[in-house]
Amino acid sequence: MGGDFGPPVTVPASLEVLAKHPSLRLILVGDADILRQSLRSYQYDSNRLSIQHASQKVEMDESPSLALRNKKDSSMRVAINQLKEGKAQACVSAGNTGALMATARFVLKTLSGVDRPAIISTFPTIDPNKSVRMLDLGANVDSSAADLVQFAVMGSVFASAVDNIPNPKVHLLNIGEEEIKGNEQVKQTALLLQNAKSINYAGFIEADAIHKGEADVVVCDGFVGNVTLKTTEGVARFIARLMKEAFMRNIFTKLVGLLVKPVLKSFIKRIDPSRYNGATFIGLNGTVIKSHGGANIQAFARAIEEGITGVEKNVPERIRSEVEQLLKSSLPSEGG
Amino acid sequence: MGGDFGPPVTVPASLEVLAKHPSLRLILVGDADILRQSLRSYQYDSNRLSIQHASQKVEMDESPSLALRNKKDSSMRVAINQLKEGKAQACVSAGNTGALMATARFVLKTLSGVDRPAIISTFPTIDPNKSVRMLDLGANVDSSAADLVQFAVMGSVFASAVDNIPNPKVHLLNIGEEEIKGNEQVKQTALLLQNAKSINYAGFIEADAIHKGEADVVVCDGFVGNVTLKTTEGVARFIARLMKEAFMRNIFTKLVGLLVKPVLKSFIKRIDPSRYNGATFIGLNGTVIKSHGGANIQAFARAIEEGITGVEKNVPERIRSEVEQLLKSSLPSEGG
Repeated sequence: MGGDFGPPVTVPASLEVLAKHPSLRLILVGDADILRQSLRSYQYDSNRLSIQHASQKVEMDESPSLALRNKKDSSMRVAINQLKEGKAQACVSAGNTGALMATARFVLKTLSGVDRPAIISTFPTIDPNKSVRMLDLGANVDSSAADLVQFAVMGSVFASAVDNIPNPKVHLLNIGEEEIKGNEQVKQTALLLQNAKSINYAGFIEADAIHKGEADVVVCDGFVGNVTLKTTEGVARFIARLMKEAFMRNIFTKLVGLLVKPVLKSFIKRIDPSRYNGATFIGLNGTVIKSHGGANIQAFARAIEEGITGVEKNVPERIRSEVEQLLKSSLPSEGG
Repeated sequence: MGGDFGPPVTVPASLEVLAKHPSLRLILVGDADILRQSLRSYQYDSNRLSIQHASQKVEMDESPSLALRNKKDSSMRVAINQLKEGKAQACVSAGNTGALMATARFVLKTLSGVDRPAIISTFPTIDPNKSVRMLDLGANVDSSAADLVQFAVMGSVFASAVDNIPNPKVHLLNIGEEEIKGNEQVKQTALLLQNAKSINYAGFIEADAIHKGEADVVVCDGFVGNVTLKTTEGVARFIARLMKEAFMRNIFTKLVGLLVKPVLKSFIKRIDPSRYNGATFIGLNGTVIKSHGGANIQAFARAIEEGITGVEKNVPERIRSEVEQLLKSSLPSEGG
């Protein structure tokens, strides 16, 4: 039911992904009448697509704590309950990020050894065959150095499992590459990561190098990560708008615009947000994927695919076992 | 002597600006032999352009504290001394940002009432007639809420003086627009700003809205501001590179590229970093402008122009008098 568009996007996206993955089963959770209505014009295998009714819906601007308290039959809550009850292995939502995180954390709990879940997502790089994973993109603010070390460990396991990168290079976002730079949080985290032998810690990275393709994982506080994500979106939209204006100026520029379209097709494909849609809530007992609220059908389908990958690669299980090991060896003992 | 290029950029830029402003006088500070050599092929009015020798040079990667201690005859230090001694009214440098800030702060001191200087610069917006000022872009990390309120006051005075905006709209950068969102630093700052009646505080702004042209001033911690600045640079360069690759693919795309150039001329002008080069160190007893290290001649000339504006608009004087008033009325009394 979530996102800017709801079932008109989520339903066709679901059917598209269902057609691609013969062993996939999907449960659409939400207002059963609306969902049945949305499905009416499509043909599909009803053994692989079922509807689970939920009488409530979390609004996009609703407070996470109020949603958690008052919306116990929301589509979001019922969907996450499916994971808890073993009826589903992943939940994909385009709804209210804060409410989804609060609900997922409350219902599923964090993995043993993980204090705080984080949001991990993907950025394109100048290397067409390589993307970079970044976390935390906004689940936490005021993270401690120990939290950031946990994010580093989880990001490393995620990149290794999902992206098949052996020994992923983990960088810490900072405002300079020198050791003396940065805030207290970053300096303390760097000290801990230097001693964490089980992570391939590759030092600081500045924000203008995220897209250079050298890092496999970039770790930062959720406030900073969310600002980075939103800045990226804002700058890309700003440039796209100015370019569009330039081509719309007169008949000559419009004609050039027609010629340019095929040239820029591969370029647009490289930075198309729908290619990178689907952020994973990492560190939970289950796979929960957050789609961008403004996702179109293609983008929401991409988020569902991210959920499938999470399940196929057994990400929570791998994180569960590896994080415990990694944390034991990488963190200074609490007694010391 | 600073920046990636030194005198080959700074000298011709100086001569260009000198030719434009008949009442301007410039002092080139640095190795006198190199500067004389650089000037040899140009004609200029030696009454308006002098050389001040400095035997040392701060390296771009030198530690600010070491530079401050060991480079007492650096071009940077001697240039800032000119302000202290009343021989110049503004200093423009493309050198090491941290060393320039440390030196400026040590030699010039902060204005009365200002605890920490900040770095303020300009971002373009979708409105061609409007840019937005943002601070702090990296002078401070771990700023307190009281520091951020001071940045808000200084930014407001700056936008009013330099950009001629009466009652500038001041926004606080956050990861959501709702009151419940953000880290402790931002939440506390918002409470203080809501009570600061002398500032036109307009609430939170998310990073993807910086370029929308609604805000006159955006305030944030220096760590976050520097990440925003570097992300903006990184994304713009990333997009430019992918576009260039798309046009370089084959003979057809190259031909289209030739047609596109004039169309994109106005677009490129809008986002050309040299149009926005020149960050002001705000809150000091004097006008100090930091040019981007990679500035070309045009961009460095722009930074000098920013210095001229700072002097002509009497920015430090206005900040000195207005900040004291504004801070008195906007900050809760220390005794209370």
